[in-house]
Amino acid sequence: MKFYDCTTAPSPRRVRIFLAEKGIAVETQQIDLRSGEQFSDAFRAINPDCTVPVLTLDDGTVLSEVLAICQFLEEMHPEPPVMGRDSRERALVIMWNVKIEQQGLAAVAEVVRNQSKGFKSRALTGPQEFEQLPQLAERGMIRLELFFDRMDNQLSVNKYVAGDAFTLADITAFVALEFAAWLKVEIGENRKDLGRWFEEVRRRPALSK
Amino acid sequence: MKFYDCTTAPSPRRVRIFLAEKGIAVETQQIDLRSGEQFSDAFRAINPDCTVPVLTLDDGTVLSEVLAICQFLEEMHPEPPVMGRDSRERALVIMWNVKIEQQGLAAVAEVVRNQSKGFKSRALTGPQEFEQLPQLAERGMIRLELFFDRMDNQLSVNKYVAGDAFTLADITAFVALEFAAWLKVEIGENRKDLGRWFEEVRRRPALSK
Repeated sequence: MKFYDCTTAPSPRRVRIFLAEKGIAVETQQIDLRSGEQFSDAFRAINPDCTVPVLTLDDGTVLSEVLAICQFLEEMHPEPPVMGRDSRERALVIMWNVKIEQQGLAAVAEVVRNQSKGFKSRALTGPQEFEQLPQLAERGMIRLELFFDRMDNQLSVNKYVAGDAFTLADITAFVALEFAAWLKVEIGENRKDLGRWFEEVRRRPALSK
Repeated sequence: MKFYDCTTAPSPRRVRIFLAEKGIAVETQQIDLRSGEQFSDAFRAINPDCTVPVLTLDDGTVLSEVLAICQFLEEMHPEPPVMGRDSRERALVIMWNVKIEQQGLAAVAEVVRNQSKGFKSRALTGPQEFEQLPQLAERGMIRLELFFDRMDNQLSVNKYVAGDAFTLADITAFVALEFAAWLKVEIGENRKDLGRWFEEVRRRPALSK
């Protein structure tokens, strides 16, 4: 297996944390998103969507979505479980991971990609250029506040996002909050359950990856 | 179990097809999205994100994302497998399902929700109102053409989207194409592999659900 990573981006960070929680070591190659290495012919031949993370398997199979990579790693290395311990939990982890990607990480991307000069003409991931829309940056900020409220509410009834065990859903939410903090969207004093959870999760050794 | 459905919307249609492929019968309740029933207090108490499909389990667990619902049903009723037959296939099905949701279904939604009068102030799903942005409708049309090209390319090397077996990835892609056809985005004569696949998939009995 080989892992294509970029230490400055949110999505591959989720896989790094997942690998660390599992205690799995994988050959890793950095792709420099800042210089546009994801658009090089060499990387495009691996992933035509020009995104990281990517995990390539020894038979040549290419996995280029976080959830797919984690699903494969979870089956290869079941202990400790990070995607749920039974059918119900596995479904809840997938559900929350999807929701957090859509409501949290997508909102972060909506802000960053539509307002940062570094993303000019790259409002969406992928090889096609799309112009920035300032209205989407504004919309993304509103969506992030709603996302923080949604997570605070969920964590008022659950120890972790998907139940009483730490899972991939927590990894995804944590990374979304980290990157939202760069945009000055903060947990604040009123979201007490989200704050309690964040302080607990940040102390896990894998989060330093 | 109970399935909350809406026969006019793309996402619940994916679950109906999945259930039919499996031969599973589930108690079903229609939620009338056109009259706004998803925003009723009764439905909001089930799914605060105000979306269908939803599958509720007998212990009260609520699953409100297609991938989570299908993952649970696949584990409860493994035969016939519709989410892959081994670890590699399962990861590929999840990967393609994510990609098709983002590149296909999200683009359909971007067009419909930003141009149709019926979606005024509802540019995004969920209880919060967001104004329509006409630029997103235009962008969505470009994205749909790219998505069709991407699928045609994938189906030039694979019989089905994720390999040589029919899976959830095909269901998701088929529903995206059906709804894109309403927007006059067509397969056309040049996308021969996509056309071959579409004609084959549409003949499956489950697709009439």
